[in-house]
Amino acid sequence: MSLALSTTVHTSFDEAVELTRAALSAQGFGVLTDIDMKATLKAKIGADIEDYRILGACNPPLAHRAVSVDRQIGLLLPCNVVVRRDPANEDAVIIEAMNPDLMVQVTGEADLVPVATEATTRLRAAIESLSDR
Amino acid sequence: MSLALSTTVHTSFDEAVELTRAALSAQGFGVLTDIDMKATLKAKIGADIEDYRILGACNPPLAHRAVSVDRQIGLLLPCNVVVRRDPANEDAVIIEAMNPDLMVQVTGEADLVPVATEATTRLRAAIESLSDR
Repeated sequence: MSLALSTTVHTSFDEAVELTRAALSAQGFGVLTDIDMKATLKAKIGADIEDYRILGACNPPLAHRAVSVDRQIGLLLPCNVVVRRDPANEDAVIIEAMNPDLMVQVTGEADLVPVATEATTRLRAAIESLSDR
Repeated sequence: MSLALSTTVHTSFDEAVELTRAALSAQGFGVLTDIDMKATLKAKIGADIEDYRILGACNPPLAHRAVSVDRQIGLLLPCNVVVRRDPANEDAVIIEAMNPDLMVQVTGEADLVPVATEATTRLRAAIESLSDR
């Protein structure tokens, strides 16, 4: 299984973040957290990396179903969506969401299959809606 | 492999959260995000669950090493630490950290092994420091 559902866009970095938020919202995912890894690593240890944001996306009905099946599943919530500048092409921005099937793979919990399947469908739709930018 | 490094404490819920933050800090992990899942699910869909917080713990040198090995690893960062009331015993609070070995398992990236090993050592020390509360 692939770790990520991903695409590449050719916009400014900030626009890529805004487009990603809008695409997630259209699929019922709110962004609960937003980590600027570039700024964090620079501030904490002086390290330089490319623009790199980690959005924590949560679809509340799906999150509730997941927690109802497996109380430990918060270890993999919210669903991370990384927006980062392509290290090989500074005009491109890579957007990738954690593949929700990972929740099933690492827990072995069959009852999570329908939840992960719906999450995957919605995240894939969000990612694909960005693909022609 | 176990998905979580976990322990149980017998304190108030708020004290458990504060003790967890202090234990993580002592091992070099800052808390970048803090999601109140109980409040989020209540506000968004009216669902009731027990006290349930998801802390996003980040050790900047380890995060930088992980990103340097595999640019996709942000999909599993920061390292989630869940603090939640035991559904079977309201006087107990369960604290569980995502097992960092998961990063190696799902990426198959051998160069992540030393990073995951150090993260596991530090998170296990944090969790074990809470075990006698």
